[in-house]
Amino acid sequence: MSYAISTTVDQPFEQTVTAVRTALADQGFGVLTEIDLAATLKAKLDVDIAPQVILGACRPPLAHHGLQVEESLGVLLPCNVVVRSLGDTSTRVEALDPLTMVTLTGNPALAEVAEDAAARLRLALAALTVPVG
Amino acid sequence: MSYAISTTVDQPFEQTVTAVRTALADQGFGVLTEIDLAATLKAKLDVDIAPQVILGACRPPLAHHGLQVEESLGVLLPCNVVVRSLGDTSTRVEALDPLTMVTLTGNPALAEVAEDAAARLRLALAALTVPVG
Repeated sequence: MSYAISTTVDQPFEQTVTAVRTALADQGFGVLTEIDLAATLKAKLDVDIAPQVILGACRPPLAHHGLQVEESLGVLLPCNVVVRSLGDTSTRVEALDPLTMVTLTGNPALAEVAEDAAARLRLALAALTVPVG
Repeated sequence: MSYAISTTVDQPFEQTVTAVRTALADQGFGVLTEIDLAATLKAKLDVDIAPQVILGACRPPLAHHGLQVEESLGVLLPCNVVVRSLGDTSTRVEALDPLTMVTLTGNPALAEVAEDAAARLRLALAALTVPVG
């Protein structure tokens, strides 16, 4: 299985980060964490990678439901959505596939939550490439 | 396989959170993100869960090495370390097992990085239960 739900957007990096935030909010995800990975690696190791941020997305009702059926689920939360630059007008967006929660835990009681989250993430990513009017 | 490296500490929650930060730093991990899960669920859903924080631990050299062999690895970073209260003097500490990165990606080139991270997390968790003096 693939571990990520992905798309490539024909837009610059910064513009895509903004669009991803909007698309996640439209699907009921809050962004609880944000890591500027390129800035972190520059500061800590003085190495250069292409612009890349990791957004930690969480839909509280799904997280709460999941924790009720898998008490250690916190180690797999929030759901990461990575935005990384492929070039001046091309940006990759990759979300961790929530179905990996079922794979890793082996807990079928998480399937409903994982499928709901996966469907919402697919809609969020699809919204990024909808042709404008 | 288990997806977490875990231990239970006979200490209160807040004290354990502090000890976990120290133990992670001693093993070269920075904490890039922190989610107070109990406060988040209280604020968003008005539900009560036991005190629980999710710390996003990252050792930059390992992250950089991993990204060089698996370009989408960001969706699996940082490595979550959850601290959650089991009672007044009992606290559970659970880290996502970095070997899940190898399982999910199917990329054997990540094994060295994952094994290094796993060994360091095991040492960090072991340090929490070392008898004092």
